[in-house]
Amino acid sequence: MAKTDKRLRVHFSPDNIDITVREGEGLLKAAMAAGVHINAACGGNGVCGTCKVLIKKGQVESTRTEKISEEEYEQGFRLACQSRVLTDLVVDIPVESRLETAVLSRETGMVAGGVEPAEAIATGWSFNPPLNKCYIELPLPTLKDNISDLSRLLRGLKRRCNISNVSVDFEVVRKLPQVLRKKDWQVTTTTLVKAVKTKADRRKPTMINIEPGNTSQKYYSLVFDIGTTTICGQLLDLNRGKVIAEGMAYNGQIGYGADVITRIAYSQTPGGLKKLQQAVVSTVNQVIDELFAQSQSSVEYVGHMIIAGNTTMTDILLGLDPKYIRLAPYTPAASFIPPVKANSLGIRVGKHVYLFVFPSVASYVGGDIVSGIVGVGVHQRKKLTLYMDIGTNGEIVVGNSDWMVTTACSAGPAFEGGGIKHGMIAATGAIEDFEISPSSLEPEVHTIGGTKPRGICGSGLINIIAGLLEARVIGQNGKFNTDLTTKRIRRGRDGYEYVLSWAHETQTGRDIVITEVDIDNLIRAKAAMYAGCQTLTKSVGVSCFNLEQVIIAGAFGSHIDIEKSITIGLLPDIPRDRFIFVGNGSLTGARLTSFSTDLLDDARKVAAMMTNLELSERADFMNNYVAALFLPHTHAGEFPNVTERLAELPDSKSGRGLNT
Amino acid sequence: MAKTDKRLRVHFSPDNIDITVREGEGLLKAAMAAGVHINAACGGNGVCGTCKVLIKKGQVESTRTEKISEEEYEQGFRLACQSRVLTDLVVDIPVESRLETAVLSRETGMVAGGVEPAEAIATGWSFNPPLNKCYIELPLPTLKDNISDLSRLLRGLKRRCNISNVSVDFEVVRKLPQVLRKKDWQVTTTTLVKAVKTKADRRKPTMINIEPGNTSQKYYSLVFDIGTTTICGQLLDLNRGKVIAEGMAYNGQIGYGADVITRIAYSQTPGGLKKLQQAVVSTVNQVIDELFAQSQSSVEYVGHMIIAGNTTMTDILLGLDPKYIRLAPYTPAASFIPPVKANSLGIRVGKHVYLFVFPSVASYVGGDIVSGIVGVGVHQRKKLTLYMDIGTNGEIVVGNSDWMVTTACSAGPAFEGGGIKHGMIAATGAIEDFEISPSSLEPEVHTIGGTKPRGICGSGLINIIAGLLEARVIGQNGKFNTDLTTKRIRRGRDGYEYVLSWAHETQTGRDIVITEVDIDNLIRAKAAMYAGCQTLTKSVGVSCFNLEQVIIAGAFGSHIDIEKSITIGLLPDIPRDRFIFVGNGSLTGARLTSFSTDLLDDARKVAAMMTNLELSERADFMNNYVAALFLPHTHAGEFPNVTERLAELPDSKSGRGLNT
Repeated sequence: MAKTDKRLRVHFSPDNIDITVREGEGLLKAAMAAGVHINAACGGNGVCGTCKVLIKKGQVESTRTEKISEEEYEQGFRLACQSRVLTDLVVDIPVESRLETAVLSRETGMVAGGVEPAEAIATGWSFNPPLNKCYIELPLPTLKDNISDLSRLLRGLKRRCNISNVSVDFEVVRKLPQVLRKKDWQVTTTTLVKAVKTKADRRKPTMINIEPGNTSQKYYSLVFDIGTTTICGQLLDLNRGKVIAEGMAYNGQIGYGADVITRIAYSQTPGGLKKLQQAVVSTVNQVIDELFAQSQSSVEYVGHMIIAGNTTMTDILLGLDPKYIRLAPYTPAASFIPPVKANSLGIRVGKHVYLFVFPSVASYVGGDIVSGIVGVGVHQRKKLTLYMDIGTNGEIVVGNSDWMVTTACSAGPAFEGGGIKHGMIAATGAIEDFEISPSSLEPEVHTIGGTKPRGICGSGLINIIAGLLEARVIGQNGKFNTDLTTKRIRRGRDGYEYVLSWAHETQTGRDIVITEVDIDNLIRAKAAMYAGCQTLTKSVGVSCFNLEQVIIAGAFGSHIDIEKSITIGLLPDIPRDRFIFVGNGSLTGARLTSFSTDLLDDARKVAAMMTNLELSERADFMNNYVAALFLPHTHAGEFPNVTERLAELPDSKSGRGLNT
Repeated sequence: MAKTDKRLRVHFSPDNIDITVREGEGLLKAAMAAGVHINAACGGNGVCGTCKVLIKKGQVESTRTEKISEEEYEQGFRLACQSRVLTDLVVDIPVESRLETAVLSRETGMVAGGVEPAEAIATGWSFNPPLNKCYIELPLPTLKDNISDLSRLLRGLKRRCNISNVSVDFEVVRKLPQVLRKKDWQVTTTTLVKAVKTKADRRKPTMINIEPGNTSQKYYSLVFDIGTTTICGQLLDLNRGKVIAEGMAYNGQIGYGADVITRIAYSQTPGGLKKLQQAVVSTVNQVIDELFAQSQSSVEYVGHMIIAGNTTMTDILLGLDPKYIRLAPYTPAASFIPPVKANSLGIRVGKHVYLFVFPSVASYVGGDIVSGIVGVGVHQRKKLTLYMDIGTNGEIVVGNSDWMVTTACSAGPAFEGGGIKHGMIAATGAIEDFEISPSSLEPEVHTIGGTKPRGICGSGLINIIAGLLEARVIGQNGKFNTDLTTKRIRRGRDGYEYVLSWAHETQTGRDIVITEVDIDNLIRAKAAMYAGCQTLTKSVGVSCFNLEQVIIAGAFGSHIDIEKSITIGLLPDIPRDRFIFVGNGSLTGARLTSFSTDLLDDARKVAAMMTNLELSERADFMNNYVAALFLPHTHAGEFPNVTERLAELPDSKSGRGLNT
């Protein structure tokens, strides 16, 4: 039905939020507008089923989908994205459909207080932020010395701070006469190295601001990692080189889809790009508010912003049309983004603040990866390094200070709980660890927050599958051993499944299971990542065994178990001490470049030196992928230690070996 | 009275314009808002009396001033600036209070078609505009070559046009993906040399625009001279190096005052600066419309704007507070204005167009003078040159390619007809030439447009005073020879006066006279100019007699008679063939710099090399000034030829010599 002008009330529980909507309004859209967080992985297309809600009172007009069972439909469950409001409503958002912010810090893997593993951080940089403040006491003008205000200021800047050859933003000139005279010709200038250094360029500072009096102790920068799911920010004191505050929030675009492809699709609808941009800007502003709520500082003293994100996220933030990112041959608009005023995008900082966006390499290897590489200093060392960020879009870099190759693997959403029957993002109640008794085949599950389980997150999925494999409940092909006698293994709607928790043990009141389809989805995801690594290393004539260092970055990566990830064939079977977790490497890079202009220069060099490989162009990728569709791999030689350990494990109680 | 909400109608004749105003609204303000041009030299303060109007029907509340005689008051004359509307009105604007545009081209002294005197124009420059267009056919992206759109474009720009190391405006990136694909990867880029070359800097182009297809033949620039009274513009074809169209209009700020000091005063009233800025921007837009009405081209292909003006005019255009220009020690906000988007000021050109403002030297030696110096090539020649722009604020430059000194003399408004009983700007009906019979002492007057006279313009005033001096009607002290027997000399309200035209011969129906006060005002004006020249030349150890070239620029200068100007002691008494008129030198400079990046670089160098002298700081200036308060000068040796000629002239019919 079309929207009418009739106004209706919708009450959301358990949030106790009331909103007024027009008759016929979509329920998901209305909830999002009111700030009620509902999962909507597919962007409201009725495909993923994550936005399931319970209509407790009132009526909606709703398209029937297979994501709602007969029984659920009877109970009043509907997909929010497929429902239009017909009457006043009371809507309950079940736990599994909720986005919670309480466990965000676990989700993002942000390392607090800037303490990263010492072996994986850029070294040798000096503290020289691209932003500089200089306090100057100017001589008063006289008839014998009545040069222009600006000439006087530049003369003072040279004498006092030895800064010359300065460009000046027009807005500085506009307020110059007043500011100079406000505190008796005592002023503080803010200069910024706007352009990074290229071969042909010297660093030329731009004066972006001037303040009356001495404010030289107060200058801050904001650094952000703009993720598809979460947005993390830090407020940095550039005077003391410290992190003052950090904060994070779910990307406000989540309601428009879980992954970048869904977001790009939405951006192509009328007004879609604008809405997505507003959503992310609004989240950034929310994090900024949070950062300043934590600190004594004032946003007016922020002089610079550095942002790292995947190409789609930064494009949308900048209002660039991401259309061609998802169309072959996948060309992004620009790898190097010219300086842009943050304020012009709607970000609530001073008018003088420029946004530096980390340069990207390709449509699917973005500035977040470049930032991570710079942050951990891959470009500074001879060590052959594999840097990976595991996720729906997995990015891989191989190289060292001399060369780097990179690629992106489309792994699918399994690592983030997508396409998994009871999958969910890593939030309270998600099963994140799992043990199984080899004899009874009874499981023990551990959830985030220690609550009753309500689903399985990606890292939990790896642990469950590794556990089931080692207990021989599933075979190396990912299929259930149906000869085993346990009621945990049963035939469900989607084929065989294993019951992790019985209905009475869960928050949802329904059994939580893992199905053969789920296992298959995860195998395909890990096969894509591993085949990507293999293809990339082989393209430069090395093998995974040559890697001297494997750096695992990103929210998801921070929470995986190395041993179990190797067991299922996600990570290469090399000495465990070569693996390093760096959490949010992207934010680390953004922070360090905010402290060091040298590293900011490096960002441009690193982006330019990285060679992007399109896996779809490589004939060997598909072979590698198919070979990896096994636990851990069809070629036992690729995983010698895992193969040996699996062979040594006792058979399960059925007595039947599974290696056959 | 305060304004009320009651609406009243005002009809203006002879324009036949009707406007609606609120009861109590000021009449001048209402007329200006409706586009009815009324003279208001003092900016509406009731001091100058130029906004005299006749209330034919209806009532106004009006402050009585001495500018309206008893008789005029009875007839219904009022000062528009002092009147508030009480009822519906019919208002007649008398000829002497009108601004007319018909004779603008005489007024501005713009040399049509770019034909300047060959001996006074910059030479040796090559045609290389700061704006460059480049048509590129890019190879289509493939999976093997899927670099970003921007990288592809920059690669093409380097290969095709050998332009590298380019900065890119963010707005170009924003539209890049669409524009590239619109005409099958065939595009035309526009690059601009935004910053001029300084010692430390190479020229670094900025890409400011991209258009689909081949538009490389279409690129234009706009150049403007922003004068206090008139605004002149030219549309240039940068592909062929030609002037396509030219236009001019009265500066819309005229209603706020005739001179920069009155305008600055107005800018300090609430909202004043904004109104002045809107007025000048509106005039610029009006001239742009006129330029495009004359040409086949479209404003979208304008890629650059260059503007020259005095410091107050450019500051107001840019929205910079001119407050400190009129307060000692007269510091302007900036001599070098950073590039600014023309569109952001309200100028109706494409969003990509930058405004280059000619650098200035001091508060009273602006970019128009620098532009003139560059345009005529003073900085290119060894010849000792005096460059002068005569006006209310007279600017003088002395120097050559090695050095330049400059100063500004406050001459007062006499040259523009201000402070002269029947003074007016150079418009139709202004007496511009004058002859007098030595025997009968009867005058012959010539007016602009050959109509009946209605006043005296500045150049007419010089000619009248020179004529009266040579006929010995006035003495060298400027006083009337009252011994002469002619009814033309009589005692008026303001002392002795000479009747130039009787009431029945004039448009105004009143006698047009020149008074001793008028003559005194002109003597003070010319004395200030001459003393300025003298002080400036002496400051560098030369005298006026050493000058090898005198360049007279500006609207007023173009119409003066050299011989008569020397006779009254305005110009130095040196060989007449050393004088050159260049008309609007400022516009010439703007045009040439639009054709040549070398000259644009020169602009910065010239502004930096000019040493400004504050006359108020020079003890000798006041001595020189007092010595010059005589016709032509108290020191006969300063004007040897004039002195000799005056001595040889026969006495007037009175038979009494005036040299005694």
